[in-house]
Amino acid sequence: MKRNVLIIGAGGVAQVVAHKCAQNNDILGDLHIASRTQAKCDAIIASVHDKSAMKVPGTFASHAIDAMDSAAVAALIRQTGAEIVINVGSPFVNMSVLDACLETGAAYIDTAIHEDPAKICETPPWYGNYEWKKRDLCAQNGVTAILGIGFDPGVVNAFARFAADEYMDKVTSIDIVDINAGSHGRYFATNFDPEINFREFTGTVYSWQGGAWQENSMFEVGRDWDLPVVGTCRAYLSGHDEVHSLAANYPEADVRFWMGFGEHYINVFTVLKNLGLLSEHPVKTAEGLEVVPLKVVKAVLPDPASLAPNYTGKTCIGDLVKGTKDGAPVEVFVYNVADHKDAFEEVGSQGISYTAGVPPVAAAILIAQGDWDVGAMRNVEELDPKPYFPVLDRLGLPTRVQINGVDKAWNE
Amino acid sequence: MKRNVLIIGAGGVAQVVAHKCAQNNDILGDLHIASRTQAKCDAIIASVHDKSAMKVPGTFASHAIDAMDSAAVAALIRQTGAEIVINVGSPFVNMSVLDACLETGAAYIDTAIHEDPAKICETPPWYGNYEWKKRDLCAQNGVTAILGIGFDPGVVNAFARFAADEYMDKVTSIDIVDINAGSHGRYFATNFDPEINFREFTGTVYSWQGGAWQENSMFEVGRDWDLPVVGTCRAYLSGHDEVHSLAANYPEADVRFWMGFGEHYINVFTVLKNLGLLSEHPVKTAEGLEVVPLKVVKAVLPDPASLAPNYTGKTCIGDLVKGTKDGAPVEVFVYNVADHKDAFEEVGSQGISYTAGVPPVAAAILIAQGDWDVGAMRNVEELDPKPYFPVLDRLGLPTRVQINGVDKAWNE
Repeated sequence: MKRNVLIIGAGGVAQVVAHKCAQNNDILGDLHIASRTQAKCDAIIASVHDKSAMKVPGTFASHAIDAMDSAAVAALIRQTGAEIVINVGSPFVNMSVLDACLETGAAYIDTAIHEDPAKICETPPWYGNYEWKKRDLCAQNGVTAILGIGFDPGVVNAFARFAADEYMDKVTSIDIVDINAGSHGRYFATNFDPEINFREFTGTVYSWQGGAWQENSMFEVGRDWDLPVVGTCRAYLSGHDEVHSLAANYPEADVRFWMGFGEHYINVFTVLKNLGLLSEHPVKTAEGLEVVPLKVVKAVLPDPASLAPNYTGKTCIGDLVKGTKDGAPVEVFVYNVADHKDAFEEVGSQGISYTAGVPPVAAAILIAQGDWDVGAMRNVEELDPKPYFPVLDRLGLPTRVQINGVDKAWNE
Repeated sequence: MKRNVLIIGAGGVAQVVAHKCAQNNDILGDLHIASRTQAKCDAIIASVHDKSAMKVPGTFASHAIDAMDSAAVAALIRQTGAEIVINVGSPFVNMSVLDACLETGAAYIDTAIHEDPAKICETPPWYGNYEWKKRDLCAQNGVTAILGIGFDPGVVNAFARFAADEYMDKVTSIDIVDINAGSHGRYFATNFDPEINFREFTGTVYSWQGGAWQENSMFEVGRDWDLPVVGTCRAYLSGHDEVHSLAANYPEADVRFWMGFGEHYINVFTVLKNLGLLSEHPVKTAEGLEVVPLKVVKAVLPDPASLAPNYTGKTCIGDLVKGTKDGAPVEVFVYNVADHKDAFEEVGSQGISYTAGVPPVAAAILIAQGDWDVGAMRNVEELDPKPYFPVLDRLGLPTRVQINGVDKAWNE
């Protein structure tokens, strides 16, 4: 049983986390939010009060922090009395925040794999580079650390575990499909920080197939998926965090991640990439100014948070899991559909931020209630999903299942 | 009769100008080349000597100059004894170099309209903003100034004058078509400085039709042209310098400029433009660095000069001129075809630089010989093309004519 939450970060996902924590502050206790720019934290707190989101009267305070400074984070944890830290800052700060939790005993939650700012995207062995090196230390200190619990990675890991536990005795493949069928009405925009977003797609695409890592390039392998609500959408084999932990936990299954892209997105991405404008290596202008092209692309693109008010349409994210039960083949699709406009009306963010921000709060609630306060480091598929899905249902991300031609709630 | 040439600029076109001046230094006398970076001038002089291009032994010297500094240019003209200045620097320096010629009495030649660096591209009334304001002063001082004598503008203006003089008593339309059917083998590149190149296409497209300026946007009006050697190519109504002087000299004719573009060029251009990456207005990165997006695009694109060694294929640039002779309709296409590989072998530049760099040298030869030493400011269609075409023929840009189903040399 733990109380009082410190949120690290003040972007679009942090906004969702803040609202959802406020709606559950009877369970979570005092709330704090910290980022480099305190004004962004204050704006989020103001939006929480605008929506009268605090369930019961209580504290919601802002702080300025350099989250790369582990000692400063530890000091803030002690000062605020936070027992749960939800890290939704940039993926560059995971390890410094985790270290602060190890030092103070606070529970740690994040939504993405740690990244080195100097790399294009995290390289093999991924979690093995940073997070899992602290697994023994978490266990020794009894520190709860839940890794990668946004929607994907996160809820989709729980979907895979649920499908395996509920319907199969052997899993043969896990295909995670992420479709954003929404429209923001702009010529082009990324749903997350462009610097992070593009980095996902410029490196090698790793998938786990036939018991080994297979390498492809982005947009090399495409497949049409016929999905609930959003219909038929084309998605491309992509690298993604959850492939790395699921492959470790289900080594006999093929594990693939598919991200939906329209032709327009692919065209703009391809032009920018081929011209060298997605590079994180500085170039020198004719006038002698050193500048990183990707940072200029980020500067001209719309701020992802600015898309929310006009975002319409749905997202569909789910796992097609195949396996056998008593020797007979089984196939199940576990999924969620979310709506951009509903998300904006509730918490002032678009659906992509919503699906990423609700799951860590649901995890925090389970830590606060004790269900998931496991005193160890866990990827999501290593935790029992049964207590998790009801909280997601209540928080606005209901889990549904398609099996044998029937579409139903997970617990029907 | 004038001698001794000062070349301003040290880019791809200046390289061609230097080689062609060297090949004709028996007529042109001492040669000098000046730019901000003297080392670029020295490299051009070295390439001239590598090709043993000097027709007779003589001077070819380099100088460092800030061509925006009119007094410095005048001092250099006096120091070198140059009586002819070929300005192939950036279009931002036209007026300071012209002022230096007015002060010293040297003849002035350029290949493009003056531009204000703060504008996207030159706005109405174009030549009327800067150059033509000095027309009376040129006449008073007896200074020869030939404006815009590259290929287009330049030779195409002479084509129009030739077609009108030779075949018509009334001109009804002049359509200038510029097709580069060559291939540089790179994903994307511009043939000139990207900063200048893109500026041509980001503003309003002006054409002179029905006795009035008509405004369109770039790539709005496309037409397929069936042309000699290069075949059928799609070209788009574009703004271009020569439209402005030809419309003043042939006000009863429609005057349009058509630039050929492949779908790939248009796609890349459209993506960059719509994202705001062709803007000359600074943006601020998340880190607070102020940077002009267009300068970053320029920094990641290939240096146009680097394309030359692998450039293959042909260019076709010509004028379709329509009118009447004794009341009967006449239609004539006056054109040149140039070859990228031939250009590189002769002067170390690609065909686009070659077609732009040869014509001002041919004009310098006519000034040196007295034919075009008119002691006044002239656009090219205001000069007799008859002495010009033989020099172009000799220098490697032969003029051909298609009329009544016959394709022939201009003087056949």
